[in-house]
Amino acid sequence: MITHPAYTVEPWSVRETHLDLNVLAQSESVFALANGHIGLRANLDEGEPFGLPGTYLNSFYELRPLPYAEPGYGNPESGQTIVNVTNGKIIRLLVDDEPFDVRYGKLLAHERELDLRAGVLHRRVEWRSPAGTSVRLRTTRLVSFVQRASAAILYEVEPLDGPLRIVVQSELVANEPGGPQEDDPRAAALLEAPLVSEYYFDRDTRVVLSHSTKRSKLLMAAGMDHEIEGPEGTEYGTESGSDVGRVTVATELADGECLRIVKFIAYGWSSQRSLPAVRDQVAGALAQARHTGWEGLLAGQREYLTRFWESADVELEGDTELQQAVRFALFHTLQAGARAEQRAIAAKGLTGPGYDGHTFWDTERFVLPVLTYTAPAAAGDALRWRHATLDLARERAVQLGLRGCAFPWRTIRGQECSGYWPAGTAAFHIDADIADAVARYQAATGDEEFEREVGIELLVETARLWRSLGHHDAQGGFRIDGVTGPDEYSALADNNVYTNLLAQKNLREAADAVARHPRRAAELGADLEEAATWRDAADDMIVPWDEQLGVHPQSEGFTAHEVWNFEAMKPEDYPLLLHFPYFDLYRKQVIKQADLVLALHWRGDAFTFE
Amino acid sequence: MITHPAYTVEPWSVRETHLDLNVLAQSESVFALANGHIGLRANLDEGEPFGLPGTYLNSFYELRPLPYAEPGYGNPESGQTIVNVTNGKIIRLLVDDEPFDVRYGKLLAHERELDLRAGVLHRRVEWRSPAGTSVRLRTTRLVSFVQRASAAILYEVEPLDGPLRIVVQSELVANEPGGPQEDDPRAAALLEAPLVSEYYFDRDTRVVLSHSTKRSKLLMAAGMDHEIEGPEGTEYGTESGSDVGRVTVATELADGECLRIVKFIAYGWSSQRSLPAVRDQVAGALAQARHTGWEGLLAGQREYLTRFWESADVELEGDTELQQAVRFALFHTLQAGARAEQRAIAAKGLTGPGYDGHTFWDTERFVLPVLTYTAPAAAGDALRWRHATLDLARERAVQLGLRGCAFPWRTIRGQECSGYWPAGTAAFHIDADIADAVARYQAATGDEEFEREVGIELLVETARLWRSLGHHDAQGGFRIDGVTGPDEYSALADNNVYTNLLAQKNLREAADAVARHPRRAAELGADLEEAATWRDAADDMIVPWDEQLGVHPQSEGFTAHEVWNFEAMKPEDYPLLLHFPYFDLYRKQVIKQADLVLALHWRGDAFTFE
Repeated sequence: MITHPAYTVEPWSVRETHLDLNVLAQSESVFALANGHIGLRANLDEGEPFGLPGTYLNSFYELRPLPYAEPGYGNPESGQTIVNVTNGKIIRLLVDDEPFDVRYGKLLAHERELDLRAGVLHRRVEWRSPAGTSVRLRTTRLVSFVQRASAAILYEVEPLDGPLRIVVQSELVANEPGGPQEDDPRAAALLEAPLVSEYYFDRDTRVVLSHSTKRSKLLMAAGMDHEIEGPEGTEYGTESGSDVGRVTVATELADGECLRIVKFIAYGWSSQRSLPAVRDQVAGALAQARHTGWEGLLAGQREYLTRFWESADVELEGDTELQQAVRFALFHTLQAGARAEQRAIAAKGLTGPGYDGHTFWDTERFVLPVLTYTAPAAAGDALRWRHATLDLARERAVQLGLRGCAFPWRTIRGQECSGYWPAGTAAFHIDADIADAVARYQAATGDEEFEREVGIELLVETARLWRSLGHHDAQGGFRIDGVTGPDEYSALADNNVYTNLLAQKNLREAADAVARHPRRAAELGADLEEAATWRDAADDMIVPWDEQLGVHPQSEGFTAHEVWNFEAMKPEDYPLLLHFPYFDLYRKQVIKQADLVLALHWRGDAFTFE
Repeated sequence: MITHPAYTVEPWSVRETHLDLNVLAQSESVFALANGHIGLRANLDEGEPFGLPGTYLNSFYELRPLPYAEPGYGNPESGQTIVNVTNGKIIRLLVDDEPFDVRYGKLLAHERELDLRAGVLHRRVEWRSPAGTSVRLRTTRLVSFVQRASAAILYEVEPLDGPLRIVVQSELVANEPGGPQEDDPRAAALLEAPLVSEYYFDRDTRVVLSHSTKRSKLLMAAGMDHEIEGPEGTEYGTESGSDVGRVTVATELADGECLRIVKFIAYGWSSQRSLPAVRDQVAGALAQARHTGWEGLLAGQREYLTRFWESADVELEGDTELQQAVRFALFHTLQAGARAEQRAIAAKGLTGPGYDGHTFWDTERFVLPVLTYTAPAAAGDALRWRHATLDLARERAVQLGLRGCAFPWRTIRGQECSGYWPAGTAAFHIDADIADAVARYQAATGDEEFEREVGIELLVETARLWRSLGHHDAQGGFRIDGVTGPDEYSALADNNVYTNLLAQKNLREAADAVARHPRRAAELGADLEEAATWRDAADDMIVPWDEQLGVHPQSEGFTAHEVWNFEAMKPEDYPLLLHFPYFDLYRKQVIKQADLVLALHWRGDAFTFE
């Protein structure tokens, strides 16, 4: 829980009334803007100070080696890490030759507001330079939901007391310093300056830079263009190099005069297309954004969000704080997935490099249920992305000696990137979470094309995994042994209740799908005979029960384990993961994710009232 | 199992009747000589070809980083790897200017014999050079059991048909190429040339080289001296440099003449003493060996082994092959531990760099029971080494949230070096194995000084571990959950039968020791009250029983797991570890080490006849 005394409670905004440099990294995430394709952390326009500079393109990643102290069969050899791409947000300001920097001079006022209906981030600043001249700055930033490849910034500056000489430098910066530190020197070397220059170009107020990654061999381009309005005598110049593009505007502002700049920013990337194709795509996006214009982009953004809120808004009376929290969460969920368009939705969305930019089971379990009912097209796209990785998941299942598909615990592009298998690969419940999201999406939308093209195959292949992962014991019960449920403080347990109940649902829904669509099923090699074996497994599924305590244990034997000594814990012992070995956590009754409670929620039908 | 058609079956020798370059690495291990302090792989005198060149000093190691794809609390950061030290075995030969190399010319005869009573390795070679001149070579190599720092080689060469010009180069070579490959480039860099030159010196027929390691900062010295007998006109020269020392002997041999060289080799190392101290120790060892002379060393070796075999020999009638195997095994066990003198006895002894030169539970479980009855002083020394690492084991227990001591799964100097905790740290049974070796040694020797100084403390601290690792469940049973037994194809199981039964024995023996020696126990903070809690835990120890099958399962729930499909295995699927993920092995009924059978062996008292 982020607590920040400078945030006010308002129904449709998140407002920060003064700047606290101690929580800069937090506010950069809270105020991050994204459309599921482009993500901009809320770094200050002038670039510094920052908590963590960040600009991301969904699924644009670098490969890095995954080292092991002791090798093991099936351990993935390389991971994928989201890359901080060319920063197009930077607009530096010189006031009478002094660089505007909130750490110097005096910050007379500083307010930021995320407007959840307009889909923009406002910033208002009044600053007195060390030399004593004062300036007012207003900026508005958006990442367009309508024009997927575009973002834009309105930048306005005016004198507060008397005439000023003003220089504004609007930039594109690649390989900016200040990324997250890596322990592994090889990974650090790769990610410190991840981009290799391929091309740069400038003309008038426009710059395009193109770069590639070293190992993953992805190609990207970033571009900017500008509309500049200032008093007579305002001049500008443009230049570009391998890692920087710059449009410099110089002017003098008298009292009451204002310099107004609209910066259009565009991004594109590809793993397959050529440099000219990617470069021209960005130039095209810039041209389209200029054609639409700032006011047009603003109007489109508001219209998109009006439609979203019409169906998605949850109105709460009597608790404005909770009302704000719900809308803020819905807004960020939309930002994470709206225009992902068959790319993964990462755990942190596009707000930062946390978890390496990977997607986990959380996407299907927590994000897609929300999007299914609020932005169903985005939910469908996310599941189509999973479907696109099915071949990789089938290969992984073969490698693990299983049938069907084994989806990766963490990934950007579909390959398993988990370097610690007991809390990664062994968490097979992700297959059931995906199947559940498929069933929910189909039930909510009645999207038959989706069902035929994507849904049935996902249900069938995940059901096959469960059938091969479990087995019937001597008493006829169907067991799933040695897997890890959602709770990360337990691992490699037998008959995890959450896993077994969700696998049961998965098996039944796949059998139903085969019965509904026998022809499509036949194309997948599935028939009623195979479906019957799934129903058998589902009907025989073991759900452990502790007779003595009269409760379901999280997994077989769990309630016999030693109870964690919570009384002995000091506040600095949390999170336990960082202060106790897995060994100790796994063998005791201590839980990080209450997956039994989660099972009660998602499989309420399987429990009696008691 | 090594099968080698060139080995003959003899009661007191292992003889190889011809050289097979395809199994060179194997024969280098079979014929390796060691005394527990120095180990020489049976590389050919001339240095090449080799399977793996190797010269080892017990516990002389380098540190290497242990990398993790995902960090975890308590994972050791660096490992220890045994280092291939300065090679003193090399004696190169030029025959009429052609280097003697078994790969060229024609090998007319090649025999090696390990004499288990004399404690020497003989080699007899007849070789015709590519130019057609023939030579006979006889060498005898020993690593002295009596003079711990010394090895020696008798080297004799004579013409087979007609006079020859002969050059012999007797060398010390540090940082020789050809070590085992490392996946991790950082580790490879460390171990490729592990030794840093500190000093070199030559005079007359003597050379001393001293080196240190880069990270572990250990200091070593190697020296050689020579006795040379040849026909008149035989000359020699001596030189040395940072990584090489060389004594070159040149002569001409007429028919019936012989060049005879005795090479004395000495080693010393220290983590604390200065360069002059270590250097002089080696020079002193050389002087002592020369003083004793070749015949004296031979006589001492035979006398030592005569005493050993008098008490250790196991005579088998009617199966000479098994007779040879038993004596060979006893001889190598003696070589691994005889003069280790409070250093670890490694899993591979000093025959190669396998398992990084680490010691595991196997030392106490398999090696020490043999040494206890055949070379009890060596067994006592090995346990005194464990005792010397007790502070490290206590620190590790604290790190793991336990009491008492947690001995490392694998180590050279006492620090945990296991980079995969489910098959390392979690295998706590090593504590019980050590306690069992202590009890056996005490029972066999009645060594009361050992008991007071070492034995009681080891028993008490290991018992404390078990008491804190297990807990009483609601029914009053004492459970040990989430640990790994000896079987490496299962991990993190509850109530492993082997672990629980050996822990039970450990707890009882510690309680008995406290009762026998209340005063010594009091110094360790233990009293009858604490001992009573150990007896309680032992009496309440859960030993799983499968009612349905009427058997003890390896651990709780094991017999409910899916049975491994052995029918589907092809020969190339073995070892399973290299072809199936741990995930799959752990959750099924498949066993690498039959630890339940081992429990039956060591705790036969706990089972009924049935």
